[in-house]
Amino acid sequence: MAYELFYWPGIQGRGEFIRLAFEDAGVAYDDVARGPQGVKAVAGILRGEGFEGTAPFAPPVLRHASLVIAQVANILHYVAPKIGLAPTDEAGQHRALQLQLTVADLVSEAHDTHHPVGTALYYEDQKPEARRRAVGFVSQRLVKFVGYFEGAIERNGASGWLVGEAASYVDLSLFQVVEGLRYAFPRAMAAVEPKAPRVVALHDRVAERAGIAAYLASPRRIAFNEKGIFRRYPELDLAPGEE
Amino acid sequence: MAYELFYWPGIQGRGEFIRLAFEDAGVAYDDVARGPQGVKAVAGILRGEGFEGTAPFAPPVLRHASLVIAQVANILHYVAPKIGLAPTDEAGQHRALQLQLTVADLVSEAHDTHHPVGTALYYEDQKPEARRRAVGFVSQRLVKFVGYFEGAIERNGASGWLVGEAASYVDLSLFQVVEGLRYAFPRAMAAVEPKAPRVVALHDRVAERAGIAAYLASPRRIAFNEKGIFRRYPELDLAPGEE
Repeated sequence: MAYELFYWPGIQGRGEFIRLAFEDAGVAYDDVARGPQGVKAVAGILRGEGFEGTAPFAPPVLRHASLVIAQVANILHYVAPKIGLAPTDEAGQHRALQLQLTVADLVSEAHDTHHPVGTALYYEDQKPEARRRAVGFVSQRLVKFVGYFEGAIERNGASGWLVGEAASYVDLSLFQVVEGLRYAFPRAMAAVEPKAPRVVALHDRVAERAGIAAYLASPRRIAFNEKGIFRRYPELDLAPGEE
Repeated sequence: MAYELFYWPGIQGRGEFIRLAFEDAGVAYDDVARGPQGVKAVAGILRGEGFEGTAPFAPPVLRHASLVIAQVANILHYVAPKIGLAPTDEAGQHRALQLQLTVADLVSEAHDTHHPVGTALYYEDQKPEARRRAVGFVSQRLVKFVGYFEGAIERNGASGWLVGEAASYVDLSLFQVVEGLRYAFPRAMAAVEPKAPRVVALHDRVAERAGIAAYLASPRRIAFNEKGIFRRYPELDLAPGEE
């Protein structure tokens, strides 16, 4: 049974967390909207065409045989045990899901630095609000989240991963978050990373894994850009404590 | 094994989604911070005291024997199958989790109407931004979310519930969202509800369930207030299309 991913073809976005899992595991998947069907495939799946059961609210969406599911953490919680990227015990699976949902919260807050008023407006129509939100994000939330993940790795023991003894999908997602934060907020990350050596080490270990290294060097890896979640706007690239 | 919930004792907040599941199922649980330990219990669990494994980033937190887990959807995904409030098949469980995560997205957006700039600031320090965000929330997002859940119930068939043939934790959560939106945005809900008869009917059926009806009439149900997620600020109580 093939895995089909439905996501916007021009951005990393939330779909990237799914792509990384498949790429790391070396499992074939069809990134459908990057093929001949294009974004029409995403529109169709959002309308619930071609399958039964709950329709998605938003992409990314995974189709696997007759099952169609949405929400990043839900997709990973479903697929990761099948491709060797999840803990095998119930407690570990719930710890992984908890951490993935915390990653999702961080991702949403990072997104809202450039869209604090609403997704229906352009960034250019909410720049003063974005600046205010970025100040709080960089000075408080980013610092708190990165510190939290640093503590989670430490608390998990000597493995250096977030849950259990082996790498799981959550580690891949934390790698992606570090990549995104470095792109969008390089000055803040330069200040924060020296206090989070375990997060940096985890990031580096993920980048060196065979599947991930090959993916990052391939044309399949879309570059960060200003249509995605992590955007580099110089006026929002603040250091912690800067107003 | 007793279930212990760690959440702020003075608000419904995100903890309410957990409380509703236990109350509906008639399963005993300890709402720890409302007992003698008070909020110190929440602070301790957030520091990771007294257990091994991943610490929470934020409440609500559930402790069940040696397992301590956070994130509303994760807690419900763990506990609901054990108390008869989840689908029993894998597909149904992932559809429920998907819908619960969509509820969580709606809850976060409702929260951000009064805190668009940041949680570290008071509402009074972000009132103009809050007004702008509320305009977009009421006119676009609230309408879209409620319409989505209406379609999800319809697509699920004749049962009138969101997933499968029986009520699940997701139905209780949608009830809670309707309650919260009615409290915070009564004018918008008055405009939207006539177009969402299935959502209203589901809400009413949940309210009549024995465990829920008893809970709502008890002192255990905290009233909505302006420290929670759903807040009634007259200046944000807009009708769709109002600026």
